[in-house]
Amino acid sequence: MSGSLRELGEFGFIDRVAGLFASHLPEGTLGIGDDCAVLEGPGGAARLVTTDSVIEGVHFLRSAISSRDLGYKSLAVNLSDIAAMGGRPQEAFLSMGVSKDTEISYLEQFLQGFHELCDESGTRLMGGDTTGSTGPLFVSVTVLGTAPRGQVRLRSMARPGDAVCVTGRLGDSGGGLRVLLDDLPRDEPDNARLLERHHRPRPHIEEGPWLAGRPAVRAMMDVSDGIDSDSMRIAERAECGIDINLESVPISDELGRAAARYGWDPYEMAASGGEDYCLLVTVDPERLADVTLAFQDRFGRPLFAVGRVTDAPRRIRYFREGEAVRLGRHGWDHFRGDEEEGETR
Amino acid sequence: MSGSLRELGEFGFIDRVAGLFASHLPEGTLGIGDDCAVLEGPGGAARLVTTDSVIEGVHFLRSAISSRDLGYKSLAVNLSDIAAMGGRPQEAFLSMGVSKDTEISYLEQFLQGFHELCDESGTRLMGGDTTGSTGPLFVSVTVLGTAPRGQVRLRSMARPGDAVCVTGRLGDSGGGLRVLLDDLPRDEPDNARLLERHHRPRPHIEEGPWLAGRPAVRAMMDVSDGIDSDSMRIAERAECGIDINLESVPISDELGRAAARYGWDPYEMAASGGEDYCLLVTVDPERLADVTLAFQDRFGRPLFAVGRVTDAPRRIRYFREGEAVRLGRHGWDHFRGDEEEGETR
Repeated sequence: MSGSLRELGEFGFIDRVAGLFASHLPEGTLGIGDDCAVLEGPGGAARLVTTDSVIEGVHFLRSAISSRDLGYKSLAVNLSDIAAMGGRPQEAFLSMGVSKDTEISYLEQFLQGFHELCDESGTRLMGGDTTGSTGPLFVSVTVLGTAPRGQVRLRSMARPGDAVCVTGRLGDSGGGLRVLLDDLPRDEPDNARLLERHHRPRPHIEEGPWLAGRPAVRAMMDVSDGIDSDSMRIAERAECGIDINLESVPISDELGRAAARYGWDPYEMAASGGEDYCLLVTVDPERLADVTLAFQDRFGRPLFAVGRVTDAPRRIRYFREGEAVRLGRHGWDHFRGDEEEGETR
Repeated sequence: MSGSLRELGEFGFIDRVAGLFASHLPEGTLGIGDDCAVLEGPGGAARLVTTDSVIEGVHFLRSAISSRDLGYKSLAVNLSDIAAMGGRPQEAFLSMGVSKDTEISYLEQFLQGFHELCDESGTRLMGGDTTGSTGPLFVSVTVLGTAPRGQVRLRSMARPGDAVCVTGRLGDSGGGLRVLLDDLPRDEPDNARLLERHHRPRPHIEEGPWLAGRPAVRAMMDVSDGIDSDSMRIAERAECGIDINLESVPISDELGRAAARYGWDPYEMAASGGEDYCLLVTVDPERLADVTLAFQDRFGRPLFAVGRVTDAPRRIRYFREGEAVRLGRHGWDHFRGDEEEGETR
């Protein structure tokens, strides 16, 4: 294979890696291809492992996010992966490549933010390294967690007919990013809330294990790239399709108002903005009412049903007022019959 | 605390991190401060976790090492940490920040080298991510392993009177680095061997668990920074000192000849060159002969006794022909009585 990483794209390369290494996994373990790897854990439990990197100039700009928020967020994105498998986080490992000119106070603030979420989530920092480098700040975090063996939830567990639900409102983080990129006033109250959700996403640590404890809940993953891309991950693993009703996608009041003010399409942000770090789950349709009621009871917030799993392999479709639409370059277009099915953009 | 990372130094910052996060570890677990963290593992075993990063421009230059060797080495340094605790490696996680212009063939070769050592060591790549970046190549590897609970070997287990041993010859990797830095002929046979040991260090995967299975073997760690710095790590953890006899430090024929040719001090390379990735162990002196004989029997190579653990806290001393010497800027100097004890350079 020739060409550069830019041409092949990130997902293409990870798939290639998986093929090279996919042989001979012991029964009950899982490698590349879900939110976490699943290993044998203590006392018959499953040990979950996830790793995620955050790179200056790619995932963040130093001028845009405080180091304290960056520390918080670089742990949050990993905790979200553990929650998405139905597990609870336990240990974290932190590796940093840091320009030698970096002020110690910057690193201290980073660690304060990291520590804050360690405390909130019961996660312990157990190791790592710090290396002086010549390049941009590079943060690589690995988190280990555990889940009862029977409660690990995989992307592949979705079944046609399942209801598709999300555990939180979508698009706020994407809205916050737009506030940054378009240099909009950060102290305007709605903008400030969107920015906060972009910089300090709340991983759904309690929601994940709670949902995984319900047999009616089948596939789970976290919303890191946006439901458009993330639904396709479930569709690929479970050999199914997903239909989403745009009217059902939950949008916060803050995002709704900011969208009206700046002419954004909030449903586009919900579909492709990413970094919301709530959970996307599929639920046995016959027990959906029980699960949503119990969820509301437990968390005081709704579990939002946004669509349905279909038997059309790898086809993500969107509907608005009963009509198929697709996410084009300029927002939502009517989906024309002569276009190739399965393409959403 | 003010200042930059350059002023504080890498070890200072890691110590600071440890203090912030050191609270409330469950019994039988171990966090920051040894080659690996120790967690609860399956079936009552100990789960070992280590993470190490390799950064372009800091740890390697693209022009100097093939991507295949780099892939091999970035796993090797982690396997060495698992061996140093007495464990066997099982799963690896690989995160890479890669310039978008990087040729896919470069990454493929990297993975071939990584895969080669996975195969040799029975380690499975179970996850990771690849991110296009603007900066130098950044590779962060996390490896998990297991060890029987009673066989985990810590740096703190050294006791005054123990013999200090190494499982391989020292300084070859440092010699290889000099070949690179001084632009010496790479095809000269001795130089080529030194370079190979610098680029493809062999982690002592079999030696680690074997040694940890002997009750006479006490502290263990791997030689990553050179015995000068690494002995101090044991001295700090075990509240002891270490005396090293330079005549006993094993030097390869290749390094000996290259040193004669280029005017190097091979014992300086052995002490501070680093990256040899053999093991530094302390052994009950009364059972040293048994252990070294059995080691020779099992591995067909000697276990080299190079010194002794003392009761002088954090004091590393070197002796040549019975006289105390110290590693100065221009090699080994006589150690004068009016200098502060414990200082080695």
